Amino acid sequence: MRVAILAHDQFPGHAKTAVGILRYSDHEVVAVLDRATAGDRVADHLPDVQDAPIVERMADAPACDALVIGISPIGGAFDDSWRPDVRAALERGCDVVSGLHHFLSEDEEFATLATEHGCDLRDVRRPPADLSVAAGTAGDVDARTVLTVGSDCSTGKMTATFELRDAARERGLDAAVVPTGQTGIMVAGWGIAIDRTIADFAAGATERLVEQASDHDILFVEGQGALAHPAYSGVTTSILHGAQPDSLVFCHLPGHDAVREYERFQIPDPRSYADLYEQVSAPVSGATVDAGMLNTQSLSPEEAQTAVESFASDLGVPATDPVRFDADDVLDAVL
Amino acid sequence: MRVAILAHDQFPGHAKTAVGILRYSDHEVVAVLDRATAGDRVADHLPDVQDAPIVERMADAPACDALVIGISPIGGAFDDSWRPDVRAALERGCDVVSGLHHFLSEDEEFATLATEHGCDLRDVRRPPADLSVAAGTAGDVDARTVLTVGSDCSTGKMTATFELRDAARERGLDAAVVPTGQTGIMVAGWGIAIDRTIADFAAGATERLVEQASDHDILFVEGQGALAHPAYSGVTTSILHGAQPDSLVFCHLPGHDAVREYERFQIPDPRSYADLYEQVSAPVSGATVDAGMLNTQSLSPEEAQTAVESFASDLGVPATDPVRFDADDVLDAVL
Repeated sequence: MRVAILAHDQFPGHAKTAVGILRYSDHEVVAVLDRATAGDRVADHLPDVQDAPIVERMADAPACDALVIGISPIGGAFDDSWRPDVRAALERGCDVVSGLHHFLSEDEEFATLATEHGCDLRDVRRPPADLSVAAGTAGDVDARTVLTVGSDCSTGKMTATFELRDAARERGLDAAVVPTGQTGIMVAGWGIAIDRTIADFAAGATERLVEQASDHDILFVEGQGALAHPAYSGVTTSILHGAQPDSLVFCHLPGHDAVREYERFQIPDPRSYADLYEQVSAPVSGATVDAGMLNTQSLSPEEAQTAVESFASDLGVPATDPVRFDADDVLDAVL
Repeated sequence: MRVAILAHDQFPGHAKTAVGILRYSDHEVVAVLDRATAGDRVADHLPDVQDAPIVERMADAPACDALVIGISPIGGAFDDSWRPDVRAALERGCDVVSGLHHFLSEDEEFATLATEHGCDLRDVRRPPADLSVAAGTAGDVDARTVLTVGSDCSTGKMTATFELRDAARERGLDAAVVPTGQTGIMVAGWGIAIDRTIADFAAGATERLVEQASDHDILFVEGQGALAHPAYSGVTTSILHGAQPDSLVFCHLPGHDAVREYERFQIPDPRSYADLYEQVSAPVSGATVDAGMLNTQSLSPEEAQTAVESFASDLGVPATDPVRFDADDVLDAVL
């Protein structure tokens, strides 16, 4: 699929979805829409992902199949300054793919335009209507199931998930990602935003995803939230028990010791946190934390090397930064 | 409020909501509707709750303000054999209160009748539209907050919650229940069915309830599910972290060692299970399991006494069956 990605004023630092698609998806990105950096190229900002021109508006983008909303403001609202770009995309017959909480398909103008021009408004965060409670059966799949968990939100779980998949594929293994959040869904082209499901059905939705992907040999399940997070721990637990993984990969940021935006809550040290995941996992699937992933983006190369070694030593298992270094030892540890 | 309660073919053994209302609510129950036991009185079946006639249909019930659906089939569907009773209630100007997954307000016939007769269809399981993520602030309330947790679903959490409230009130304390499920909501007349909220908002919904009730001195928060349950652990965790309780009461059934309807999953022994709750609670609110509640309904009086003593000894804290014995020691332990 050929796509344009909307990332106004946020590219690349705050455009997690846009960068995820550029880095991990099979889509051909024909343009990034960002009025702040228009005229640059993606490669000017991110040397290690697919390149594309950055343009000011949809009218300047080359022909493509879809416009993807590649940013997600807090609260998931639609920013009305994006309206002309969405309108232009629909008028050109492009689908529009969005992971916002605000569903584009419920917007009257967009719905009318989509019907007129025969294109789709795909709200990837809308859960299927037929979800139900978990049966407790995800552990029965033949695939090796590896779940990324973390010490907080935004500690690199999605990145670790795709990096592990790519490392496994490089070895010729049949590996797939099981996407549980909007970015993963957009990159992989399927999945369910577990955080948006009815709470009673969150484990059941995760179970369905694992079972749907079970014809692969290895599944890397994208985790969400964190087990000791004051707001999101329910989603984390639902994924942990719904996926019934064989192995856990613990994702962390160096020196990160308080929950982001909830700073009064201290984050347990990595080994204690890993123990907590294992203890909660034990009665259902018995997975252990077999590897660690550290996002060292903010560190110098030397600092990063030291931080990864110290993190591995704290956890007592192999660790890496999968973007800066490679994921081979970690992959060995979880297979 | 004067209410009739619909409990066709299920009273009293499988009518948890009906019995909860008869036992714990301030509503005056004018009749129970049960075609199977019509002609009996409630006291013929349950000597220790408020008495009322059992009638065959709504037309036979005395004047009242509302008809409450007091049973909940698996899946939460509406049984069409109840339609004449709901219709009759609306035609008499009674509100109809339901905790079913199937929302009565979306039933065309009922909606039309309710409008015609100026009465309300109250679907208590429908969450408020304006929920959001938790702020992590429930621990700041001045009230002493006590949460019931359990080793499985249906281990007596709702009963323990109301019994503790009543025991506290008997001492002249200002205590309230914070209802998180449909029965508790119907009994107390307010609350949110946390299992029905969007997963990301489940902790936030719990937090809102605790903060709404925080003018009381003691809050007994109704727990849901169980922390090691393969399907419902996400809801349990959301309530544990959303409520940020000071104290936990662990509810259990004697000899219950496998998850109901998920029998391949063993239930950890009570002390290990209590430890698990404390470990997951620790990073957010630090609550400890200070008491135990055992549902000994299936045991003889002597067996019950022995079971409670053994349970208390296993847990290392005071325990009781609050329906069969009293809740004084347990109340002391959590205050």
